[in-house]
Amino acid sequence: MDSSYTRLKGGVGAPLGFLTSAVGCGIKNPAATRLDLALIYSEVPCSSAGAFTTNRVKAAPVRVTQAHLRKGDLRAVIANSGNANACTGVQGIDDAKAMCAAVAAPLGVNQSEVGVCSTGVIGLPMPMLRVEPKYNDLIDRLGAKNGSNVASAIITSDTHIKEQAISFELGEHRVRLGGCVKGAGMISPSMATMLCFITTDANIPRDTLRKAVLECVEESFNRITIDGDMSTNDTVLVLANGASGMPPIRRNGKRCKQFRAALRWLMLELAKAVVRDGERVTKFVTVQVRGARTYLDAKKVAEAVCKSALVKSSWNGGDPNWGRIIHAVGYSRALIREELVDIHIGGKAACLGGLQAATPMEELRAIVAEPEFEIIINLNQGDADYVMYSSDLSPEYIDFNRSEYAYWKQARKDGLV
Amino acid sequence: MDSSYTRLKGGVGAPLGFLTSAVGCGIKNPAATRLDLALIYSEVPCSSAGAFTTNRVKAAPVRVTQAHLRKGDLRAVIANSGNANACTGVQGIDDAKAMCAAVAAPLGVNQSEVGVCSTGVIGLPMPMLRVEPKYNDLIDRLGAKNGSNVASAIITSDTHIKEQAISFELGEHRVRLGGCVKGAGMISPSMATMLCFITTDANIPRDTLRKAVLECVEESFNRITIDGDMSTNDTVLVLANGASGMPPIRRNGKRCKQFRAALRWLMLELAKAVVRDGERVTKFVTVQVRGARTYLDAKKVAEAVCKSALVKSSWNGGDPNWGRIIHAVGYSRALIREELVDIHIGGKAACLGGLQAATPMEELRAIVAEPEFEIIINLNQGDADYVMYSSDLSPEYIDFNRSEYAYWKQARKDGLV
Repeated sequence: MDSSYTRLKGGVGAPLGFLTSAVGCGIKNPAATRLDLALIYSEVPCSSAGAFTTNRVKAAPVRVTQAHLRKGDLRAVIANSGNANACTGVQGIDDAKAMCAAVAAPLGVNQSEVGVCSTGVIGLPMPMLRVEPKYNDLIDRLGAKNGSNVASAIITSDTHIKEQAISFELGEHRVRLGGCVKGAGMISPSMATMLCFITTDANIPRDTLRKAVLECVEESFNRITIDGDMSTNDTVLVLANGASGMPPIRRNGKRCKQFRAALRWLMLELAKAVVRDGERVTKFVTVQVRGARTYLDAKKVAEAVCKSALVKSSWNGGDPNWGRIIHAVGYSRALIREELVDIHIGGKAACLGGLQAATPMEELRAIVAEPEFEIIINLNQGDADYVMYSSDLSPEYIDFNRSEYAYWKQARKDGLV
Repeated sequence: MDSSYTRLKGGVGAPLGFLTSAVGCGIKNPAATRLDLALIYSEVPCSSAGAFTTNRVKAAPVRVTQAHLRKGDLRAVIANSGNANACTGVQGIDDAKAMCAAVAAPLGVNQSEVGVCSTGVIGLPMPMLRVEPKYNDLIDRLGAKNGSNVASAIITSDTHIKEQAISFELGEHRVRLGGCVKGAGMISPSMATMLCFITTDANIPRDTLRKAVLECVEESFNRITIDGDMSTNDTVLVLANGASGMPPIRRNGKRCKQFRAALRWLMLELAKAVVRDGERVTKFVTVQVRGARTYLDAKKVAEAVCKSALVKSSWNGGDPNWGRIIHAVGYSRALIREELVDIHIGGKAACLGGLQAATPMEELRAIVAEPEFEIIINLNQGDADYVMYSSDLSPEYIDFNRSEYAYWKQARKDGLV
């Protein structure tokens, strides 16, 4: 963390001029004891930008939010967890639009100024009868500095909320940047399965913001993988309302670079938090690929290693198994040369020139026994590099994901299926 | 199975003129109670063909066998399990060549007429001191009709041997075709992690055999996946010695088609047997993709579905979760249209036009509770189709693959590392 950043509380509620609220509707659990509907609202107009799943099966809220962003800027976001509103057809689109409309009217904004996000089970209709009675509460509870409620309302299989907020100087003004993220399973690059909301009171024009967001997403959320599955609902939304009073950030200026650095830092913190909280994850592994001929080759190698079930199983077992790592390097489709590959684990050589290095096995085992370690794969063929953040795959992950039948049973009780 | 095929015993030993043997050297277990070194030998010269891993990290025996096949035809194959002789550098090449040379001399063939295959742990030197004393036994025990010993000597984490042999009429002659395969983990298309040896006493010229082998591998071993990992050692070797006395098969003639059909049937039987015996597998799932715009799109969809950790977890749990299937269809990079996708499970509609179908959940659950079922994904966009054979992913798979440390400890005892 840059020493000029000051940590703040309140996540997406930390920046000036943003109000947030969250309620429990009973989408996540029928007793409605868990928060599952959230609202973010800026008291003044915003510029905004988004990044979305590249899955061709896109949930209704993704389609609706993309359409709203094409029309203009967002000023509010409504989000629910427990139901993804994905594969729900025309009804799903209607439901997503209705969620926007329901909060737009009391907030006094256009329906198209509201973004909508959903996360949860795929293929079941949204339980709108549970959501509709809660809109009034959601509006009534809007308040400053309580962004943690939003972080709480969007999580599903996450074990804890994930949020960050900082303030920093931008020219003569202090600005705030806050964010929260959810995601633990169905996590794969381009993008990870997640919702992420980021707010800032910096003043940054739409186009400049959009460029910064896409660049920072590429270097953060597109660099993580837990299970290699890519969701139908991934969304990152960034709202900048300028409430700090600063003049607009100029594209490519010094302040633009500073803002981008802060945004990248925040996104990377949130992305790493997703991996650390991955479903039944016990290891956080940074995989650095160096010396590739091309950026694309470096990326292919990193993704193959980070997604290999056998490599991930060995990490789960604390086994510094470089043979499985190099076998994934080999099938990555990058043009690697086996006899040039070096693999270092926690700074110690495991494989040099495609062969076993002299490091005693016990030293490597001690590194991989830790909850976090770094693997450097040097292809020794060029200057391109790539980094990814990955996890192990545990027996408990499979066990956890064996069945979503309970959701169907609840949907039947609700008369939805 | 074609009703004109007659099942035979003896696997690769069933065709006329082939002798086989196997011994235990102590590579797989120090007590040498398990067979781990095998030899196949044809009493007369053969035509031969091979298909090999596409992994750029290639084990030494793969490189040596490829070189021998470029020089001419094989007449014998030596194979071991317990050590892959992969990532072993120049020493590995020397060891692989030494294995060929050691049997070539007593058999009276050139060293380049011997193929060599290894399977097991990656990155440890071949324990040649265990292998060398056993060559004499291996030669002495050569005999007809005991190919099951070969099938037994090549397995690693497989729970049982996998072999098939048939005889069938080709013109006026009866010919025999036998094969065995090993593979249970590191199984992914292009190719599966496996060794496969096939022998026949049909008379088929080298070029015609090669074409048939590559076509049949594409439709069998390249269609299976267990864990999505692709090995460094995959090899299919086919030896045809003409000992049935038939005249040579002409390319594209009727007998060529008949032979190809029998070879394809045998390879597909062996490939399916690999999936059924996959590491800690409980389900055998046939995934049919239909109605794709292109063959490549159909293939992308099948591979994405068959490799998805979340889809495989749901199969393990007996959950007919079409939402996870369509989400994998969506990220496959095929140009699919969500609103056209139909998914049938065991002949019953689970998803129609991208939406949940009316089939009662209990009916779908009953199908997925079975050890084998079929999923048909119709993209409704064209005429191209593709089929793959896949398995579930179980908590026990991860547990089984957590550590190969025991192999390292043994290698240290042997003074190899």
